[in-house]
Amino acid sequence: MSATDERTTADARAGYADPLIKRVMAANGIEYAYRELGAGEAPLVLLQHFRGNLDNWDPALIDDLAAERRVVPFDNVGVGATTGTTPNTVEAMAHDAIAFIEAMSFQQVDLLGFSIGSFVAQEIALIRPDLLRRVVLASSAPQGATGMHGWAPEVIRAVGQPEPNPQGYLDVFFAPTSASQQAGQQAAGRIFGRTTNRDAPTTWQTRQAQYDAVCAWGIPNHALLQRVAAIDLPAFVANGDSDPMILPRYSYLLAGLLPDARLTIYSDSAHGFLFQHHERFAADVHAFLEERA
Amino acid sequence: MSATDERTTADARAGYADPLIKRVMAANGIEYAYRELGAGEAPLVLLQHFRGNLDNWDPALIDDLAAERRVVPFDNVGVGATTGTTPNTVEAMAHDAIAFIEAMSFQQVDLLGFSIGSFVAQEIALIRPDLLRRVVLASSAPQGATGMHGWAPEVIRAVGQPEPNPQGYLDVFFAPTSASQQAGQQAAGRIFGRTTNRDAPTTWQTRQAQYDAVCAWGIPNHALLQRVAAIDLPAFVANGDSDPMILPRYSYLLAGLLPDARLTIYSDSAHGFLFQHHERFAADVHAFLEERA
Repeated sequence: MSATDERTTADARAGYADPLIKRVMAANGIEYAYRELGAGEAPLVLLQHFRGNLDNWDPALIDDLAAERRVVPFDNVGVGATTGTTPNTVEAMAHDAIAFIEAMSFQQVDLLGFSIGSFVAQEIALIRPDLLRRVVLASSAPQGATGMHGWAPEVIRAVGQPEPNPQGYLDVFFAPTSASQQAGQQAAGRIFGRTTNRDAPTTWQTRQAQYDAVCAWGIPNHALLQRVAAIDLPAFVANGDSDPMILPRYSYLLAGLLPDARLTIYSDSAHGFLFQHHERFAADVHAFLEERA
Repeated sequence: MSATDERTTADARAGYADPLIKRVMAANGIEYAYRELGAGEAPLVLLQHFRGNLDNWDPALIDDLAAERRVVPFDNVGVGATTGTTPNTVEAMAHDAIAFIEAMSFQQVDLLGFSIGSFVAQEIALIRPDLLRRVVLASSAPQGATGMHGWAPEVIRAVGQPEPNPQGYLDVFFAPTSASQQAGQQAAGRIFGRTTNRDAPTTWQTRQAQYDAVCAWGIPNHALLQRVAAIDLPAFVANGDSDPMILPRYSYLLAGLLPDARLTIYSDSAHGFLFQHHERFAADVHAFLEERA
């Protein structure tokens, strides 16, 4: 057994609470930071939310996903421990993600994109459809939908400041109910309680570039809604019923525009519905990814 | 107590299983056939499905709705016992429905449109928004959505023939599961078991004109999807998860395009989800109509 194999086995025992960060050099000259957990045929590659790095995935969700498949979260260009500068368009982020997938020598993957990561997932499906098998779009919206030009003022105040704001995180990722807030405290404990093998923090450059991309994505343009009609991959669209960052109506819209989408709205939850309802969401993802074509 | 009051009281006791058909003359020269049940401020006016007349509303649903409000199903122009010729566009049907509402001297109404009736409801909301308070869109779709140019071949075979096809009705209005088919048998018993005070049957002229309107509504035109963005009334969009006549994806799309929509998809049910789940659907309609603005 090689040193790498030993580490992988140790990771599988520890779960996502304490995995090593791995690195791979891509053809674009970028060294990507990633983690991997679980085993299986088509890897499930994860695309992270606004300002998030590898550590911002709830270990409870990753462990639930990794119980049945190979799961690969990574930092896109300029994010966390990945080198380079974060680009300011979703399209460039998609090309950067494709470069990572190619560097990993994955022939075909399933994608799970969360928030801005779900915009990147849509773009990958449009640019390089053959690379994908199925796509999960969590807290998503199609480019050009009206009313989503940037996050709402209270949302960007809560999660857009230079320094992290723990209460702001809870306000955006969890619903204003005691059940959701309690789930939020637990998720935040798992996410921010990590003490070893931490990823590098995301920078202000990443925040600004990502927010430029978010605002550009939200420039209202009804004609652009038609783009996702070209995504004929099976898609699973999911959202929290009280998400203040990307309203559920955009999940309805996306699921209605996509030719082959399933839609689930999780009750009493917000942007972090997939952390709050990690067990049910992971079960729904597994069921979707295992559907017979 | 006048003769009319006595009749109304008798109707309330009997429920929708055996109500009188009433008639009102409108300014457009049409004599409209309608029924009414229940009491309350804003009447809930019902717009019926393809080829349906007053008798095709499940009495169980009407009774559940009338328990808390005034409910007014009517035959639009040329349908059942209403005089005139059925027009072949949704827009003309909307003007005809407005003429009925004016003839009834209703200042403002709630609308529940079902199937083609939901297309008419959208059009009324666009033509005469001030006439409406809130709108329920059951088994609906926005004009211009792709993939709905006419009913699917198996659907039009089942419900589009000159003679009624009881099995075809069950196949389209109920899901292919034992629970849904059993509910369908019960609903069909309530709907078709009526022996007195029957409405006039709908004609082939109505069928052809309505189907022309349905096909025109489904001519794919992405730009037309933007029309419903002008409906800023509160809307409740509802569908069965297995509706073969108007797929749930069009409810997603509609709810995503409407500025102020709630969406509920009812499990294990098809086009007749509102008959199968009459109790829950009526409760959801009451809750929606009683929301504080």
